[in-house]
Amino acid sequence: MNNNLPCVILVEPQLAENIGMTARAMKNCGLTELRLVNPKENHLSEKAISASSNSEDVLQNAKVYSSTKDAVADLQYVLATTARHRDQTKTVYNADEGVKEVAKNLKSNVLCGFMFGPERTGLRNKDVSLADAIINIPLNPAHCSLNLSQAVLLVGYEFYKAHNTLFSSEFVTNHTTIANKEKVMLFCSHIENKLSDFANYKDENKKEKLLINLRNIFTRAQMTEQELNTLYGIINYLSK
Amino acid sequence: MNNNLPCVILVEPQLAENIGMTARAMKNCGLTELRLVNPKENHLSEKAISASSNSEDVLQNAKVYSSTKDAVADLQYVLATTARHRDQTKTVYNADEGVKEVAKNLKSNVLCGFMFGPERTGLRNKDVSLADAIINIPLNPAHCSLNLSQAVLLVGYEFYKAHNTLFSSEFVTNHTTIANKEKVMLFCSHIENKLSDFANYKDENKKEKLLINLRNIFTRAQMTEQELNTLYGIINYLSK
Repeated sequence: MNNNLPCVILVEPQLAENIGMTARAMKNCGLTELRLVNPKENHLSEKAISASSNSEDVLQNAKVYSSTKDAVADLQYVLATTARHRDQTKTVYNADEGVKEVAKNLKSNVLCGFMFGPERTGLRNKDVSLADAIINIPLNPAHCSLNLSQAVLLVGYEFYKAHNTLFSSEFVTNHTTIANKEKVMLFCSHIENKLSDFANYKDENKKEKLLINLRNIFTRAQMTEQELNTLYGIINYLSK
Repeated sequence: MNNNLPCVILVEPQLAENIGMTARAMKNCGLTELRLVNPKENHLSEKAISASSNSEDVLQNAKVYSSTKDAVADLQYVLATTARHRDQTKTVYNADEGVKEVAKNLKSNVLCGFMFGPERTGLRNKDVSLADAIINIPLNPAHCSLNLSQAVLLVGYEFYKAHNTLFSSEFVTNHTTIANKEKVMLFCSHIENKLSDFANYKDENKKEKLLINLRNIFTRAQMTEQELNTLYGIINYLSK
């Protein structure tokens, strides 16, 4: 297996469609290795492949095991996903903390896996006892039932974020540049020059407030040079 | 609407099943208010209700609108979810950062919403230009296509995690209110009406770009009602 990525283990999944959707969710999150313990339906059926939406390769490469024990035999660090409270002496991580443990282990070439239980019942205690720790997905406690593939998606998504260095936000300006303050202030002055006879501008008290409002609006918008040109065009047209 | 929670806006969702699954995902994340713009299938059909898995109340309370503009009219801070790169000048937040912006705005009683586009095409540029910023879900770039309800789930999940944390920055509006989208769009229309003879407005190709530029500038600035009045005064004076 790929040392740098955890595998996903589905214990006794019941519906082919859910296996397919799990494959799709895995691929969304950059995961490729799927292990199935006694699946109730064929993971290569038409239903499964159609639900996988271009992730057929994950299904083709999936391995089938006859027991959870066999499916985790070669792994060195396994997290079990559970929704209900478990009466077991194990660390319970929130999803974002659990995936960090996995990312840390992968860095030391430790083979890792995320384990998920059957749709209706979730993992049995016997299966949970094979895991190093439990991963819990924080959701509305009054309504926390998730489709199997959605549980895989949320854990996979957290793993993807922890595994890759991501930008947090970016101001997209495409092919134009953010106007510098000089240009923004020149634009504000340009408007001011057009306002000499404007009542609010002639009233000294209102004038100051008006100029401050103008600057606040246009500095907050982080305008691009192109947008500034648009506004120049409009102001010039209106004041003709 | 509930001031303390953002609403979810689905623009032209195509499948009843996806609307139902969206309701379920919302409830998983503690969200309750669903807005639908021209849904192609009935959100109260058996298919939708069955897919909602005990979240029928979200569907029953959903409101249907005939345009995206109407659906966001009363909102004051809107994030548009997009997968593809957009040729628009807006801040793009990663999901975890975007939801923090929403949580921050909610703290100041700003009405917020998350906007999602149709299954096949995603949001149109015209719709994106109504939003204050863009939210991007970080996923495997080679395979980032998500089911609509899964996109809602991931954004909702991030929101759920962020909702109760405290924030270090706050947008101060003093004694005035952030203008809702209806007021901002009315202002944009007001400018448009003054431009009928403007060369760039008469050229159909340039016109669309110009209108999107205008919307982007003024949605990005999160203008207060007072500032909007200042701009009305100026535009009216200039166009006398």
